[in-house]
Amino acid sequence: MEQKKYITIDGNEAVSYVAYRVNEVISIYPITPSSSMGEWADEWSAKGIKNMWGTVPTVVEMQSEGGAAGAMHGALQAGTLTTTFTASQGLLLMIPNMFKIAGELTPAVIHVSARTVAAHALSIFGDHSDVMAARATGFGMLASASVQEAMDFALVAQKATMESRVPFLHFFDGFRTSHEVSKIELMSDKVIRSMIDDQLLMEHRNRALSPDHPVLRGTAQNPDVFFQARETVNPHYMACPDLTQKAFDKFAELTGRQYSLFDYVGAKDAERVIVLMGSGCDTAHDTVNYLTEKGEKVGVVKVRMYRPFDVRRFVESLPASVKSVAVLDRTKEPGASGEPLYADCVNALHEGLANRWGQVKTMPRVIGGRYGLSSKEFTPAMIKGVFDHLKEGTLKNHFTIGINDDVTNTSLPYDHGFSTEPDTVRRALFYGLGSDGTVGANKNSIKIIGENTNNYAQGYFVYDSKKAGAVTISHLRFGPNPIQSPYLISKANFVACHQTFFIEKYDMLSNVVDGGTFLLNTPAKQEDVWDTLPVEVQEKIIAKKLKFYVIDAYKVAEETGMGLRINTIMQTCYFAISGVLPKEEAINAIKDAIKKTYGKKGESIVKKNTDAVDQSLANMHEVQVPGKVTSKKHMPKPVSDKAPDYV
Amino acid sequence: MEQKKYITIDGNEAVSYVAYRVNEVISIYPITPSSSMGEWADEWSAKGIKNMWGTVPTVVEMQSEGGAAGAMHGALQAGTLTTTFTASQGLLLMIPNMFKIAGELTPAVIHVSARTVAAHALSIFGDHSDVMAARATGFGMLASASVQEAMDFALVAQKATMESRVPFLHFFDGFRTSHEVSKIELMSDKVIRSMIDDQLLMEHRNRALSPDHPVLRGTAQNPDVFFQARETVNPHYMACPDLTQKAFDKFAELTGRQYSLFDYVGAKDAERVIVLMGSGCDTAHDTVNYLTEKGEKVGVVKVRMYRPFDVRRFVESLPASVKSVAVLDRTKEPGASGEPLYADCVNALHEGLANRWGQVKTMPRVIGGRYGLSSKEFTPAMIKGVFDHLKEGTLKNHFTIGINDDVTNTSLPYDHGFSTEPDTVRRALFYGLGSDGTVGANKNSIKIIGENTNNYAQGYFVYDSKKAGAVTISHLRFGPNPIQSPYLISKANFVACHQTFFIEKYDMLSNVVDGGTFLLNTPAKQEDVWDTLPVEVQEKIIAKKLKFYVIDAYKVAEETGMGLRINTIMQTCYFAISGVLPKEEAINAIKDAIKKTYGKKGESIVKKNTDAVDQSLANMHEVQVPGKVTSKKHMPKPVSDKAPDYV
Repeated sequence: MEQKKYITIDGNEAVSYVAYRVNEVISIYPITPSSSMGEWADEWSAKGIKNMWGTVPTVVEMQSEGGAAGAMHGALQAGTLTTTFTASQGLLLMIPNMFKIAGELTPAVIHVSARTVAAHALSIFGDHSDVMAARATGFGMLASASVQEAMDFALVAQKATMESRVPFLHFFDGFRTSHEVSKIELMSDKVIRSMIDDQLLMEHRNRALSPDHPVLRGTAQNPDVFFQARETVNPHYMACPDLTQKAFDKFAELTGRQYSLFDYVGAKDAERVIVLMGSGCDTAHDTVNYLTEKGEKVGVVKVRMYRPFDVRRFVESLPASVKSVAVLDRTKEPGASGEPLYADCVNALHEGLANRWGQVKTMPRVIGGRYGLSSKEFTPAMIKGVFDHLKEGTLKNHFTIGINDDVTNTSLPYDHGFSTEPDTVRRALFYGLGSDGTVGANKNSIKIIGENTNNYAQGYFVYDSKKAGAVTISHLRFGPNPIQSPYLISKANFVACHQTFFIEKYDMLSNVVDGGTFLLNTPAKQEDVWDTLPVEVQEKIIAKKLKFYVIDAYKVAEETGMGLRINTIMQTCYFAISGVLPKEEAINAIKDAIKKTYGKKGESIVKKNTDAVDQSLANMHEVQVPGKVTSKKHMPKPVSDKAPDYV
Repeated sequence: MEQKKYITIDGNEAVSYVAYRVNEVISIYPITPSSSMGEWADEWSAKGIKNMWGTVPTVVEMQSEGGAAGAMHGALQAGTLTTTFTASQGLLLMIPNMFKIAGELTPAVIHVSARTVAAHALSIFGDHSDVMAARATGFGMLASASVQEAMDFALVAQKATMESRVPFLHFFDGFRTSHEVSKIELMSDKVIRSMIDDQLLMEHRNRALSPDHPVLRGTAQNPDVFFQARETVNPHYMACPDLTQKAFDKFAELTGRQYSLFDYVGAKDAERVIVLMGSGCDTAHDTVNYLTEKGEKVGVVKVRMYRPFDVRRFVESLPASVKSVAVLDRTKEPGASGEPLYADCVNALHEGLANRWGQVKTMPRVIGGRYGLSSKEFTPAMIKGVFDHLKEGTLKNHFTIGINDDVTNTSLPYDHGFSTEPDTVRRALFYGLGSDGTVGANKNSIKIIGENTNNYAQGYFVYDSKKAGAVTISHLRFGPNPIQSPYLISKANFVACHQTFFIEKYDMLSNVVDGGTFLLNTPAKQEDVWDTLPVEVQEKIIAKKLKFYVIDAYKVAEETGMGLRINTIMQTCYFAISGVLPKEEAINAIKDAIKKTYGKKGESIVKKNTDAVDQSLANMHEVQVPGKVTSKKHMPKPVSDKAPDYV
């Protein structure tokens, strides 16, 4: 194994990084949240960056996702390695070509940042409804749960498809994984190269349609032979799970990161087990660790390969002691006998028990539930809620978790206050205005911490639907271990309010821990600021014993020639008071970053920024919090009393 | 109930007949085998035929199935009753709009002549792979098994969707049902009218997007509310099965034809049960009747409503005595834990037993199998093969039936000679040349018999892939009871060879019963014809003691001024010797039909045709079959010895 090398990137870039290196033709059509995968590939191709074989991949933008899939199908038939990136309705438009690509046993991977399919409303956010709508196509499916896995599985999928000739759809949760910035181990070119078997590539080339060795393919067949011919794919699908596990094993040899088709984590004598896939796996893993330490007999099966569904390995992954199982689907199929992963698990148990596979001897109680539709939060508290329910005498099938369904009463209750966040992780929330530079500065902070320290880092950015001019909330975590918390921060050590007027608009302090820090950008002076706060804010600062800092960032920006750009200033304050890094070290790191970022733009820009850093420190002040509420101003109600009835 | 009225039509026309009457906008894009549904609607609209509300439906042909679905979605949002017809890849292109139509709870029905989705090869023939690929959309699904059911369910689906607001996909087997010509009970306008509730129509109208009562619909939603909003459809899906059963019950009151969401047929103490949907239901029903009469404890569950899948009603449909169940899917999903209907049934049993629904107390052995992909024949012999297998100690899951899979050994064996065809049914096979008028004449014969006698009639026409100039085989059945035999004829009483050269090309006599009749169109004279036959044909005529007739139809056609048109001549011969009708009566009926068909073209055309009828009778001769084989000529091998190796 080589020396580890780290990089701080988001899921889309991680996937694109690999996909670019192992393909020759990349047909794209942008759709949120997959777009940046195609954009990266396009940029790298324009820059002449080469793939594993020393050629620059051809990136072609088509007129629709139907065209992207058609171009992919065509390029594959010409014997090239080809991929595409998509999501949601884009994936739906690829389905006809996917049936063909799979039917013809063509090695290829489609990378999908899984996104809600529009139903009663459109949504750009993440769930598995798009992927599930494509599950009849015959594509293999690998689900990655984190940015690291997204990079890793992008490569494993490529090896698995070349070995088995079953094409793969590799997916990961839209936004939650595609847009989470995380410090991960970078895969070396050597690892990538070692995972590609040239012999298999040659076989793919030799199957190309070519006048040099004419074959007939893609014709019309009639009832006399179609059925027989359709069944000839069976050996490939039967071999695919083994070949994929071998690909995972080979990958583990090269990198030390071992995955299985179904990874069980938890107590050896677990009685209650949750099964799921996607980013929720990390949340469940984390929660299971927390609960088993407290002696609870719980476990989780992380589904990595959803198709082909290896019935035997799934059943074998369950401990003998299991009594009740909840299978969680991040999709909804109205009218089905159950959501798809649940249905597959029940089927697998039925068949596995009939064949005496695995250690489970009698059918456990199995229920299915829905969670996280359209990036609805999915937290350890909800996982615990499900585990708690699995203890009960009567189980509720087809439940929901994470919402309050007071119409059809499908929801399970859970303790909203439950948290597994360890003390070793520092958590910060930043409330900025769309386009005010807050998100960019935070991404920069993550890189600084990720690349200058041994800390792992995670950043997730919540935008309002109107990107520019609305609130953006940055959720940053830093800690000594890889961060397995793909959910929003509810217990922040640090909260920064980058826009003064937010103080009356958003409840920012409910999510701060006692004794945490609150930083406010305000034109009010240190001694006057207290009285500008609404009652609710004063109450929380007092009750939680918060440390309270202020800075007039717009004034500093103006005075240092930065105009309206407050991002560097607020970033400096964060480093100065959060203690994530020793102060000196942090300030130097920011200044280094400034040189890197603005060096090309000239000495004066660099100087303006470094001046701003120094002035930030000089102009930030801690406020002595009075012991009592003095304000007469209340935060406005969500709906004004003056609003007309129909609101 | 009104006086019964019969009509002889194919499945597509039966469906279109109803769909046209209960819709106002029909958006179409033609795709085999659904095309004629749209063509009928287009023709009726052009002729000004009115729907139930006295208006002429607007029929619009779009640029693709995506457009047809989009137009449908738009028209529905304007409060009109809208439908479309499609199949296969066409349906796949409708999936994005189907998610929207269902998500918005819009009453509408899409009629699908279910057809194979292209995989390793394209196929125009029938199976459920298209419908299954759309099962995530939230559409309800009704499956009809015959031409009669296709007409009936087209109406029931309309009522069910208007009652429940769950849109429906109504499907039936492509070609097998869509193109089978059958004598069925015609639905009166009064029945159609009685099934439509004007109040529900007004509610649909009132939900239209309109500036008169502005509402917001089809917007984008974010993680805060999407999940909750998505779950609001639940009450509609929960109510849908009851409402659909009520629609079936109301329909039964009006017509006497009673259906259930799951119809069980068979022994009350059945131990072996088959579950399936589509045209195979009739084959299974027929076979179960045959086997239970012989004392076998078997039964079949016909799935009428596949979505929403009513778990409780499914479990309740099974007899308490059931020990083993085979669920048959007319589709293949490589990589799934099992085919979809099988997976739903296992899930339903799991949940039903947990809730103590129905009479079954312990989980039966359940296996799944595939059959009939791309219109592969599905016969009583195969049904019996599955029942026989269900007796065995070890069951083979994920089996195939109807093919010989000698690679992965999935196939079940069956007795190819087993038949349930009753003696009361007359069965005839006609070998014609594409475009020689054979199929048209046979459709005409079915109408004559269907409309002039109490006999039920069925016609199915097998085309080679190249329509004109290749063989067409017409399969005709006539009998005193409704014909439940949606499979090809293997025991014909009558075989006609309309083209002399076929005698050396096709084995036409393997499927004739002993003592059956063989009619050959040949220029050879009565006394010379024997020696023109190959050895294999002579052997079969002798062994089976066939009655053998000849006519030189081309000579008669030429002499009566018919040119090359032999259809009326061969039809006359069939009626004269088959005994389906008394000869006199039959001849008069043909002449009446000629007057109807050609009356508008003038007296001389009518006379030519009636002359041809008379001359046919004069020129047809029975051949005295010699007791021994005299020929030296053999039928050629399928592949010539002279063919190059690669063939």
